[in-house]
Amino acid sequence: MEKVRFPDTGYIFKDEQLVQTALTHSSYANEAHGRDVVCNERLEFLGDSVLNMLAAEYLYGNFSRFAEGDLTKLRASLVCEGALYKVATDIGLGDCLLLGHGEERSGGRGRPSVLADAMEAVLGAMYLDGGLEPVRKFLTPYFESGSAEAIKKHTLCDYKTALQEIVQKNKQELICYKVTDASGPEHDKTFTATLYLNSNPLTRGTGKSKKEAEQNAAKAALELMGEL
Amino acid sequence: MEKVRFPDTGYIFKDEQLVQTALTHSSYANEAHGRDVVCNERLEFLGDSVLNMLAAEYLYGNFSRFAEGDLTKLRASLVCEGALYKVATDIGLGDCLLLGHGEERSGGRGRPSVLADAMEAVLGAMYLDGGLEPVRKFLTPYFESGSAEAIKKHTLCDYKTALQEIVQKNKQELICYKVTDASGPEHDKTFTATLYLNSNPLTRGTGKSKKEAEQNAAKAALELMGEL
Repeated sequence: MEKVRFPDTGYIFKDEQLVQTALTHSSYANEAHGRDVVCNERLEFLGDSVLNMLAAEYLYGNFSRFAEGDLTKLRASLVCEGALYKVATDIGLGDCLLLGHGEERSGGRGRPSVLADAMEAVLGAMYLDGGLEPVRKFLTPYFESGSAEAIKKHTLCDYKTALQEIVQKNKQELICYKVTDASGPEHDKTFTATLYLNSNPLTRGTGKSKKEAEQNAAKAALELMGEL
Repeated sequence: MEKVRFPDTGYIFKDEQLVQTALTHSSYANEAHGRDVVCNERLEFLGDSVLNMLAAEYLYGNFSRFAEGDLTKLRASLVCEGALYKVATDIGLGDCLLLGHGEERSGGRGRPSVLADAMEAVLGAMYLDGGLEPVRKFLTPYFESGSAEAIKKHTLCDYKTALQEIVQKNKQELICYKVTDASGPEHDKTFTATLYLNSNPLTRGTGKSKKEAEQNAAKAALELMGEL
């Protein structure tokens, strides 16, 4: 068993093989010809469900006035790739991964999808090793900050502004809206707005006003990006 | 608090208000003008995630040779509306539901979606009341029969899964596939896959895709074992 560095979760594993498996990307396992090396995909499957459950439990307990639909949206923001990537970065997960040569060369160690998947696998390993409690303890601070942030964005109820804030981090990205359809009688029209990202149509939204249609197109784009 | 009949889960609730909420359909809560009646939708949100997690845990532990993709497929069959409806019927959940008049008249008491949702809410209530263990104990027999049935159905079309299921009974046995040949023009290739049992080539299959070639190699192995 190759000795690897363990990520800084604050949890001491009883079974170190579990965390080693969680750190093993499929590209590494595939290159380990002849040796019986297991990759982290099965642990990722388990960890994903543990994460979802603990996020649901946290939101159920802490947002008692939220209806099921809002809980679902809020949870999406806690378990999305971006949220997991943040946790993975915090604990230095990238430096601990076992990657194949090709994956290493193509920058897999810093790729959000690779890190998010491995993060779920680490959660699965923690659950198998120590039950729900250590995973809950580890995740709760992230749930606290993540839900506060999501609500801050959300309470503005201004999806266009929220989207603009996200998109403007990348100076090359340009968003614009066009009202592309209006149907129904004059006194009760329904408008459709199309959102363009760098001149490419991305999402559409409908509403009883042009403004509402644009807001809904922005909301759809945020959902598409996993931000809602 | 209106006295309701409790479904036959075999679990004794410490907090009976929890199970009462789990049995309360939104149509009932909506008609309870002035009284503070909570419907089961938030508990359903929680119960759904508990169900998913326990199904993942069960499959992870009992199908150790299944890859993540097969575990995902198998889980879908354990947590789908049909599976939940079966559990709900078993415990007489329909007779216990609190429904609004309209929902009652339109046959909500027997509607699979209503029963499946309430079943998830009951699981959520059990989890809040007693933690994971009673829910795990209650669901495990359903996971056992459900996964066996799903695999039996699946074997009809998926030889790789069928073979895996047979082989995994012996933990020492390891199956893998390699594409060992590809011939013909680029647009019309024929692939050959070799199936290895513990690193020894056992059978071969051909096909117009790698997947088809592997399926045919697995089919040949099943025939060799007298399973087809």
